[in-house]
Amino acid sequence: MTKTRKAINFTDKFSKIADFWQPRVVAEMNDYQFKLARIEGDFIWHDHPETDEAFIVLSGRLRIDFRDGAVTLGPGEMFVVPKGVEHKPCAEGEVHLLLIEPRGILNTGHAGGDRTAQNDVWT
Amino acid sequence: MTKTRKAINFTDKFSKIADFWQPRVVAEMNDYQFKLARIEGDFIWHDHPETDEAFIVLSGRLRIDFRDGAVTLGPGEMFVVPKGVEHKPCAEGEVHLLLIEPRGILNTGHAGGDRTAQNDVWT
Repeated sequence: MTKTRKAINFTDKFSKIADFWQPRVVAEMNDYQFKLARIEGDFIWHDHPETDEAFIVLSGRLRIDFRDGAVTLGPGEMFVVPKGVEHKPCAEGEVHLLLIEPRGILNTGHAGGDRTAQNDVWT
Repeated sequence: MTKTRKAINFTDKFSKIADFWQPRVVAEMNDYQFKLARIEGDFIWHDHPETDEAFIVLSGRLRIDFRDGAVTLGPGEMFVVPKGVEHKPCAEGEVHLLLIEPRGILNTGHAGGDRTAQNDVWT
């Protein structure tokens, strides 16, 4: 019997994401999740003491500030923020982002506060 | 003191990859690796009994055959092959691929043979 399998199309998924700074899970690989997020403007300083975090920019321009510098990503560029390193994403205009990190990681790390998104929401 | 950090640019990296079916590591996240590969034509049937494997197509058109069906990916699409599931990637024309999987995984899984690429080679 033939099993139906479907590719995950990032453009289709983004069309279903209305809110900014609300990462949506689109796939899992072992205990890791692939999350899409629409972001714009500055986020807050935070870190993830337990894990690295991978950022892949699909569209727009993202600066990630560190306490001792910054890195800027355009479409087709990625960067891995090492675990425990404080960072602050800053999107100049709207950015479409693919995040890869272990299941259970909050967007604000251990910083908490009102920018914390609901975790593990799929689209 | 300011630390210099550099985005990983997929187009730049591909310009340094001459060979087909030779995945090149471009980044690590915890014990996982991000690998770029230029592929064309059919690969061999294999599986990875110990891990899922994520495929993201950056350019071109990739069909992944399964014993009970297939999935086709274009640019901006992804699919996670579950662990232990036999699959055979088939690229119609040249495909630029981003693979994400744990460090140490061979491209041919446990199938072995002359299509097995050298592992853990960075570019």
